[in-house]
Amino acid sequence: MKATLIEVAPRDGFQPIGPFIPTDEKVAFVEAAHAAGLRRIEIGSFVNPAAVPQLRDTAEVLARTRGLPGLDPQVLVPNARGVALALAAGAQHLVYVISASDAHNRSNVRRDTDTSIREYGEVVRDLPAETRLRLNLATAFDCPFDGRMDEAFVLDRLGRMLDHRADVEVGLCDTTGRADPDHVASLAGACLRRWGGGTRFVFHGHDTYGLGLANIAAAWRAGVTGFDTAFAGLGGCPFAPGATGNTATEDAAWMFRRMGVDTGIDLHALVAVAVRAAALPGASPGGRVRAAMAGALASG
Amino acid sequence: MKATLIEVAPRDGFQPIGPFIPTDEKVAFVEAAHAAGLRRIEIGSFVNPAAVPQLRDTAEVLARTRGLPGLDPQVLVPNARGVALALAAGAQHLVYVISASDAHNRSNVRRDTDTSIREYGEVVRDLPAETRLRLNLATAFDCPFDGRMDEAFVLDRLGRMLDHRADVEVGLCDTTGRADPDHVASLAGACLRRWGGGTRFVFHGHDTYGLGLANIAAAWRAGVTGFDTAFAGLGGCPFAPGATGNTATEDAAWMFRRMGVDTGIDLHALVAVAVRAAALPGASPGGRVRAAMAGALASG
Repeated sequence: MKATLIEVAPRDGFQPIGPFIPTDEKVAFVEAAHAAGLRRIEIGSFVNPAAVPQLRDTAEVLARTRGLPGLDPQVLVPNARGVALALAAGAQHLVYVISASDAHNRSNVRRDTDTSIREYGEVVRDLPAETRLRLNLATAFDCPFDGRMDEAFVLDRLGRMLDHRADVEVGLCDTTGRADPDHVASLAGACLRRWGGGTRFVFHGHDTYGLGLANIAAAWRAGVTGFDTAFAGLGGCPFAPGATGNTATEDAAWMFRRMGVDTGIDLHALVAVAVRAAALPGASPGGRVRAAMAGALASG
Repeated sequence: MKATLIEVAPRDGFQPIGPFIPTDEKVAFVEAAHAAGLRRIEIGSFVNPAAVPQLRDTAEVLARTRGLPGLDPQVLVPNARGVALALAAGAQHLVYVISASDAHNRSNVRRDTDTSIREYGEVVRDLPAETRLRLNLATAFDCPFDGRMDEAFVLDRLGRMLDHRADVEVGLCDTTGRADPDHVASLAGACLRRWGGGTRFVFHGHDTYGLGLANIAAAWRAGVTGFDTAFAGLGGCPFAPGATGNTATEDAAWMFRRMGVDTGIDLHALVAVAVRAAALPGASPGGRVRAAMAGALASG
């Protein structure tokens, strides 16, 4: 059995960090994650640099890492303009993000979800045939404004997105970290039953309330085999302690190893990356395996 | 649906803390946990005070808290001498601990497992009829010396313990925190199929590698309804950063609330207890909900 961990620290993890991480250092992190066995890495985004100044060098990070053997780098795009910028920079794997909840979609990209779905339809129509597409369904479980999302409503909205193109990878995103294992199993199971033939599903969780691994385990049991995670559990907001960190890649890699599931990851090499990432100025690291393995190494 | 969280911080959580926690403060923690809705609390142990000086005042803590309405206080005992001391102090609910692994049992109580099982048989025979008994099976999944435990071996040893008395509560203890959700589901499922008619099973996990909640969720799905947890995720060893903390009670309570499962716990009151516990001198706190809820409260 194999599980794929998709490393999102260079995008979702670095994004909230205030002090600019030099491009050389970003490139070094992508190289080190690749050397630890990660092959799918979300290396940045093409969004308004005024809104997310940390990721303004994504084009350069992409240019300098895309040649790593076997690496499949993906970049996040929130709208048609982002798509154009990403394609111009040579990106071949795009992550288009739309929120299931209108309130969150407006907050994120200043338009309602239907408008985003229409724009997405045009993007899909015009996309070069060789460009791989991932669709991130934000607030698939819970919305910071609207609370728990109704499953039938979410499935309906996702269906209208998949009407535009079915052979995409869908990220079921627990934006707030408030999904629970039963909820994850239920939505993931419903998606796989309905679209599992042509559409691939990935779970993107946050460890805000400690449920990151429990939710990954639930998604795995429901049949999901791809998971977004971030080394050192980066993604926490420095202005809200404890909030919104991604699930730590090293924790997920540890869990799957104990379960006898191959991830292709060299855990010791990955923990070394996580230790460096946790020390980034302005980072809010999370996860347990980094400390547990460092402690075990220190005590012999 | 109902799940029972059994609060073990006053025993498993306080035990590794170096500076002595004054008896008044221990009593205040038990009272506060009770006020937050916890009804089963492991308030201490009757072990050699030279080995565990922190818990040398268990008799007094028991005397001062046993009258709390509805409280069912339990105390840990490792041998016949501990049982005698506990009964003399008026304890009515004992937790007898035996390791599935000989190496761990020797390290813990300086005798092999068979010797402990024989001694346990004598304890069971002589126990007053009204005394409730819990049997903690340490290293049920993994041993710090022997590694992963063979499931058939563990079931065989547990069977010989249950031959002495079947109507006990058994704690399946993940002593090292290295159990994974599949392993927990497998052992818990096997136990429930074999003895679930007369024996109650509880899962006791540690969050060392971040799998505390994932393992509780797996045990719950397998049919287990009782779980040992510690407020603030106490139980970490101050000499090995990140190691061996219990799963945080507030994290488990949060998860079950999201899953629509009643635990009888007032989460805000419990988080207040956890915040105080995390500030104990010498404590190594864990868990995520404490910080997430404190952050949410701080940001309005």
